[in-house]
Amino acid sequence: MSHSITQKKDGSVVTVLLDNPDKLNALNLASWDELARVMTALSEDDEIRCVVIRGVGERAFCAGADISELPVKRGDAAGARQYGAVTDAAMEAITECRHPTLAAIRGPCTGGGLEIACACDIRIAGASARFGVPINRLGHVLGHMEMKLVLAAAGPELLLEMLLEARIIDAEEALCRGLVGRVVPDGELDATVAAAAERIAEGAPLSNRTTKKFLRRLSSPAPLSEAELDEVNTVCDSDDYAEGLRAFLAKEKPDFKGK
Amino acid sequence: MSHSITQKKDGSVVTVLLDNPDKLNALNLASWDELARVMTALSEDDEIRCVVIRGVGERAFCAGADISELPVKRGDAAGARQYGAVTDAAMEAITECRHPTLAAIRGPCTGGGLEIACACDIRIAGASARFGVPINRLGHVLGHMEMKLVLAAAGPELLLEMLLEARIIDAEEALCRGLVGRVVPDGELDATVAAAAERIAEGAPLSNRTTKKFLRRLSSPAPLSEAELDEVNTVCDSDDYAEGLRAFLAKEKPDFKGK
Amino acid sequence: MSHSITQKKDGSVVTVLLDNPDKLNALNLASWDELARVMTALSEDDEIRCVVIRGVGERAFCAGADISELPVKRGDAAGARQYGAVTDAAMEAITECRHPTLAAIRGPCTGGGLEIACACDIRIAGASARFGVPINRLGHVLGHMEMKLVLAAAGPELLLEMLLEARIIDAEEALCRGLVGRVVPDGELDATVAAAAERIAEGAPLSNRTTKKFLRRLSSPAPLSEAELDEVNTVCDSDDYAEGLRAFLAKEKPDFKGK
Repeated sequence: MSHSITQKKDGSVVTVLLDNPDKLNALNLASWDELARVMTALSEDDEIRCVVIRGVGERAFCAGADISELPVKRGDAAGARQYGAVTDAAMEAITECRHPTLAAIRGPCTGGGLEIACACDIRIAGASARFGVPINRLGHVLGHMEMKLVLAAAGPELLLEMLLEARIIDAEEALCRGLVGRVVPDGELDATVAAAAERIAEGAPLSNRTTKKFLRRLSSPAPLSEAELDEVNTVCDSDDYAEGLRAFLAKEKPDFKGK
Repeated sequence: MSHSITQKKDGSVVTVLLDNPDKLNALNLASWDELARVMTALSEDDEIRCVVIRGVGERAFCAGADISELPVKRGDAAGARQYGAVTDAAMEAITECRHPTLAAIRGPCTGGGLEIACACDIRIAGASARFGVPINRLGHVLGHMEMKLVLAAAGPELLLEMLLEARIIDAEEALCRGLVGRVVPDGELDATVAAAAERIAEGAPLSNRTTKKFLRRLSSPAPLSEAELDEVNTVCDSDDYAEGLRAFLAKEKPDFKGK
Repeated sequence: MSHSITQKKDGSVVTVLLDNPDKLNALNLASWDELARVMTALSEDDEIRCVVIRGVGERAFCAGADISELPVKRGDAAGARQYGAVTDAAMEAITECRHPTLAAIRGPCTGGGLEIACACDIRIAGASARFGVPINRLGHVLGHMEMKLVLAAAGPELLLEMLLEARIIDAEEALCRGLVGRVVPDGELDATVAAAAERIAEGAPLSNRTTKKFLRRLSSPAPLSEAELDEVNTVCDSDDYAEGLRAFLAKEKPDFKGK
């Protein structure tokens, strides 16, 4: 296994690196598989407060799938089923990650790279960021679940501009149209992302996990049960809530334990 | 009962005031309960054409729940069930109000205050407005239905920035990201809101109520029945529609009766 | 039949013209019916790669329904049922068009004209464009399905400002709030739209049709079947996908056949 996906840890914040800088961090099948495994393992680690995903180097977030291996690995429907099961698992592992996820984006963020960014909770871009999914130039399409991810971040019109026109948009347009929440000069990206991760890490981890769980639940059309609607109340029996109220009224900094 | 929620009437436009200026108009349990009652009563009054919600004074819209009483009133899950039933009733009374609702926002609009604003149909902010819901600093979360309200106005990424990062955003960012539709200098807020309320009051009240009813209906995933799909046609048997057509073609000002 | 809806063809791109310039291209019942027929026929033509919808002349996209005939043609609920069946068919024919659709907008784009624009996949506006649906001045409303169309493009708050306040917004505000994706000077509109249509025409037509099909499917709350989820894989058995991969890796321009 090459080191296609690497990690570094800084306190309770883990950075996952998409690591193939010679190809703008494009991911091959082995890397997608590794990404799924890494994200699943991080999700289960209760010590973590925030996961940042970024590309290695200063040139790119991720240019998507490594196309050079597609004729062999995804050359027909049978191949696509195997390949797609792996990329679906990677996207699901990011989407289902219990901890807040932050995409730090510079340079190309295209195709599968855009999907990774859209699977994250929060996107912060450097001014060099470029977004698109020119998949119709390959005669291919986004699957329903991939499209749903990008749709939630981009809205229907920008999604269709990227898919039908194969438009690549810059950071300024991505900000104006809501695909990313913040754009900063490239030189400030790392510090901005680190500060955001720090703010996330200071919040009650139980709150953050529950927030993510509720938001995912709202994306399903099934009616909410009484038990589900009561979950917000049971949070008030947690140690973190008692600590949060106590610290707020004492004007102290809370010390959350995540339970 | 303190005058925690007050009202003033100007023609067919009623202004509901969140009235606790010493605490940035934070609402205690009695105020939430009163807000639910006031909004329900206004909804039933056929003489009303528009309801404006604002804070008392020039400093704040509403800083949310009055936290000082939470250790007693919402200290555990059992308390939260009682407290939440009241705040849910207030949000539902705003959301279900048959008349158009307008939030006029200056200064802090946070926590439950943000929920009130998002429950309104239209939000107009002064440049001093600040938005957020830093609830993870308390170890708490938005319930599913509260989250759904803010999600509809803020979209998923800004919602998560406010919840996970505890970000407070200013009026300019709220405008850029679609959380509010218009921002004006604070000194022009009252006049801008009054003009908007006036325009609303000039429209056919039956149209406005039906518009709100249809939009609420679209938020449910249940398929529309034939009878529901026919409601748009039955509007053409109303006196207001006949008057609207007549006045338009005669180039006169219509005199709508609301039936 | 007057020439209320006309067409011109330029290669694989067809432009549909709303043709009633003396009345800002307002459509009467016969025109709505013709629009439905034209769009349905274009959808079935496999030689077409993109459909542009615009108004005749430089003054307007479309000011909606021709109100002068409404007292006779839509004067009561019975008339509205007949009239609405025709306009619904027109909107459905645009929405269901298998080929990418582009609205080229200058001047008034209001009422039914706004609905046409929102039924298109992509909206590009000249700086003179104006948007609104001041239907409550007529005592009328948007039906559920019409509202759903405008809601998807405008979001709930702008939709309600247009419906409840009868606001007419300019191109700049429409861009800022996401109702249109791009605004250019009027003098550049035709060239910008032609370039976008050209980019669309260069993509694999099977990809574009499948993208539109998947996006429509996502607007339904019904769970996706295994067969539906597998459709993305079957695309990899198409000639267009093989050609797309081949051309990409050979650094050549692909020659897509649409199968």
